[in-house]
Amino acid sequence: MNRQKLHDIPAWKKLIKHARFMTFPEKHLKHLVKEKNRLEKFSLQGAEIFYDFSRQRVDKKAMDLLFELADARKLKESFNLMASGEKVNTTENRAVLHTASRNFSNNSVLVDNKDVMPEISKVRDDIKGFVSKVHNGEITGTTGKPFKHIIVIGIGGSYLGTEFVSSALHAYADKDIKIDYLSNVDTHNFGRIISYIDPETTLWIVISKSYTTAETMANVKLAYAFMEEKGLDPAKHFVTVTSKGSPGDDKKTPVIRSFHMFDFIGGRYSVTSAVGGVPLSLYLGYDRFERFLKGAEEMDNHARSAPVHQNLPLIAAIIGVWNNNFLGYQEQAIIPYAAPLHKLAPHIQQLVMESNGKSVTREGDILNESTGVIVFGEPGTNAQHSFFQLAHQGRPFPIDFIGVIKPQYEQFQCRSKGVTNHQELWANLIAQPMALAVGKDDKDKARYFPGNRPSSTIILNDLLPENIGRLLSFYEAKTVFEAFIWDINPFDQFGVELGKTMASGIRNEIATKNDKSDHTFEGMDHITKSYLDMLFKK
Amino acid sequence: MNRQKLHDIPAWKKLIKHARFMTFPEKHLKHLVKEKNRLEKFSLQGAEIFYDFSRQRVDKKAMDLLFELADARKLKESFNLMASGEKVNTTENRAVLHTASRNFSNNSVLVDNKDVMPEISKVRDDIKGFVSKVHNGEITGTTGKPFKHIIVIGIGGSYLGTEFVSSALHAYADKDIKIDYLSNVDTHNFGRIISYIDPETTLWIVISKSYTTAETMANVKLAYAFMEEKGLDPAKHFVTVTSKGSPGDDKKTPVIRSFHMFDFIGGRYSVTSAVGGVPLSLYLGYDRFERFLKGAEEMDNHARSAPVHQNLPLIAAIIGVWNNNFLGYQEQAIIPYAAPLHKLAPHIQQLVMESNGKSVTREGDILNESTGVIVFGEPGTNAQHSFFQLAHQGRPFPIDFIGVIKPQYEQFQCRSKGVTNHQELWANLIAQPMALAVGKDDKDKARYFPGNRPSSTIILNDLLPENIGRLLSFYEAKTVFEAFIWDINPFDQFGVELGKTMASGIRNEIATKNDKSDHTFEGMDHITKSYLDMLFKK
Repeated sequence: MNRQKLHDIPAWKKLIKHARFMTFPEKHLKHLVKEKNRLEKFSLQGAEIFYDFSRQRVDKKAMDLLFELADARKLKESFNLMASGEKVNTTENRAVLHTASRNFSNNSVLVDNKDVMPEISKVRDDIKGFVSKVHNGEITGTTGKPFKHIIVIGIGGSYLGTEFVSSALHAYADKDIKIDYLSNVDTHNFGRIISYIDPETTLWIVISKSYTTAETMANVKLAYAFMEEKGLDPAKHFVTVTSKGSPGDDKKTPVIRSFHMFDFIGGRYSVTSAVGGVPLSLYLGYDRFERFLKGAEEMDNHARSAPVHQNLPLIAAIIGVWNNNFLGYQEQAIIPYAAPLHKLAPHIQQLVMESNGKSVTREGDILNESTGVIVFGEPGTNAQHSFFQLAHQGRPFPIDFIGVIKPQYEQFQCRSKGVTNHQELWANLIAQPMALAVGKDDKDKARYFPGNRPSSTIILNDLLPENIGRLLSFYEAKTVFEAFIWDINPFDQFGVELGKTMASGIRNEIATKNDKSDHTFEGMDHITKSYLDMLFKK
Repeated sequence: MNRQKLHDIPAWKKLIKHARFMTFPEKHLKHLVKEKNRLEKFSLQGAEIFYDFSRQRVDKKAMDLLFELADARKLKESFNLMASGEKVNTTENRAVLHTASRNFSNNSVLVDNKDVMPEISKVRDDIKGFVSKVHNGEITGTTGKPFKHIIVIGIGGSYLGTEFVSSALHAYADKDIKIDYLSNVDTHNFGRIISYIDPETTLWIVISKSYTTAETMANVKLAYAFMEEKGLDPAKHFVTVTSKGSPGDDKKTPVIRSFHMFDFIGGRYSVTSAVGGVPLSLYLGYDRFERFLKGAEEMDNHARSAPVHQNLPLIAAIIGVWNNNFLGYQEQAIIPYAAPLHKLAPHIQQLVMESNGKSVTREGDILNESTGVIVFGEPGTNAQHSFFQLAHQGRPFPIDFIGVIKPQYEQFQCRSKGVTNHQELWANLIAQPMALAVGKDDKDKARYFPGNRPSSTIILNDLLPENIGRLLSFYEAKTVFEAFIWDINPFDQFGVELGKTMASGIRNEIATKNDKSDHTFEGMDHITKSYLDMLFKK
């Protein structure tokens, strides 16, 4: 990879200059969208996904310069190095192989000269075997009843991706098994879950790479105590997904089965590993999980091999950098016009903000350019009735609109105002990007729409498992490509350490006070002490 | 109200100057938090809520200037004019009286010389009577079975507030009635709901002021057809909350009962009216709904009468403006360390972004200063494992941390690492604002924390209905105070009109095509036509 400083790359300098030009009145989106063949020139199809960036504030020159930047940064080469086992997580000296977790080719992937594919395949086979035994009633809880409810205990990357996929494919969950997530250490989360589960038919899946995550361990403790109190044997109701040799992969932790995760797959990239594999296969069936993986693999292959000019995630990444560093937008909204994708934004929020919320290059230099944006979103049309006022007349922010041609429920054909509900949804999906782009003049300034608000539109044919895999991999690859442009490491997260350390000091104070009620927190700063007093005064 | 332009107000000019001073190294939060009595000077208690702004990037001078700005804009006077029935929604020539919907005093509130309180009390009495008949089984569905499931059909302000309150108070829902929301026109929303409800025991509550909202009407149509197909009489399963005289308040719409809403309460401020009153009283019991109202009333009274220096929502508003206009932050995160508040951020997102996402003053002049920020958030500690990497080491954004001293579930006292789960939650709640404020130096730049990230901490004693009311009213008043500073109208939403108009044109095209399959969308622009072709090619 080219490790020139960003502002030393010729394309970067030219982009700064060109961005000024793009603020001229004649470059307003209301003119750009009228250009001949605008859509054909600024959209493409790849891995069965249609990606339209005709309503982004780019012209041919901007795209040419962005492709020049992509070439200067050797994006595809970097991506291929990552996928082939190079230790691109430099700060932690690790390979990054979420792509290997959905590699169904016969190609080996070497880490330290050892092929990791046999291990990965074995985990998948383990999952397949285990799941079939649960589904056919061979593996049951203490009282012999089949499992009807999965509770995933895990936080952050240990559940957000799985939650996204399980929501997206809910319509296909035909195994008579429900799924819920116990992520927060807050007892409200636990209290609510145990208020409606039947413990006899509940299977807890504990997901933690290190098996030391404070929140997860605290919840495991509550869950074990709860099951024992109900006279049930935890060894028959718990499964772990954890690193080989962790405390969760130890005979001292009695479980039905442990599944392994690897240090070369980071939490926020792990839904295609056992982290998603165990719960999703139980919930949807192993076959659907595999179809989801194959969709992700297809998009991985597209990201690796499609030419720069036809590469969806790469183009999405350079547009992301354009919006961020050259046009100055600090946010990215994700608005799926498909309710099953309602957990996409929280997942991508973590993926982007944890991967790219960095201010230092891989060489350890402070970066002057801004990196990851703030990601948020709700499904359309709901979002239109919530925060689109600001999108149209307040502070502009780029949006990814996502549409689905065939919904999961096709039977609702009754019409209101001459159209079906699905068509009504599409009328809005089609109207919004254009309204944001073109705006509308009005003498009454309260009714004036400045327009020139950028967006992309992403269209999926349907919401089958393959497409959920493609969409997931699209955003993963986009995020990684952006990081490669900035030369930051999207695979570490040292930014969460300080809070953890300070919380640990406070936890010790609380533990001391729990044991010695006359303890007074004198070692703490005044503000911290005041809050500790507040907690104990209740 | 003083309608000087912002940059002509002396305090505004002084604040611009002072903001530069606050960027000096000695004004870094790591120093500010060590000042003697920092917490005592920069925190306050009001309406039983504790509000701590000691980790905001303010000093005494900044606060003095902000109070000067508050005085110049006559914030409290404006708020009192609003609450007393003045037509402060100038563009629509309407009074703004969400405060009246929780006014239990004997004071009259005049609109056009007519006291609105009798009407408001009557609606509350209607709700109380109706709800008691549902709870005691006097009002049932077609087959005589009691109602067990409420589905609210409504979008935007017709459900977001109610969804927030029902989630927050879920632990007290002891009426054996569940609640769900059918907001999106997307059939996935409808399809999923009907997959698990028992239609015989389902009560649909349709909420729409005009009873013409496209999404809501399309869903009502589906719901009616569904109930009829099940052999049930919609007249015995539907309730409407709508304006007097709307199509939903007409004998042609057969319903059990219609409840009225008023043009002086806007959607996003309506959860304390019948909009929230009908579903929440059914779900929680009328008494708890009234306790919720009384909490909101208490905070309203605080906002109206507490001196500027002791006024929580007013101080929160001037700090919001300080962060936005003087320090340049474009976002506001809301992070409740209380899972039941997980729908607070989506509600406040609408409240703020729809109210204050404006670029024009109440006089119709384009405003050069930026207004509403982008609001987003997830509960802590989940958020720590999702996007706090960016908060600590990437792009800084202000955060409202929210803590609760007594959780709804107090029985979980088992300890992990010496502390209960609730204490673990608090260890993090205490640690994060301080970690963000003070940062940490490190020679390894990847482990360097710049700090100086601003936040407020809001503490509630518990999550009883009164406190949910206080919290709601706190954010409503904060939002309105901010609008008064900018002199924008936080009660209209013309920004949603252009998208609606364009969607309506597209809907007509689709309807024409549904009738005449050879219709070719020639009147549409090329991009719109391409998407219409895509929809019909499926």
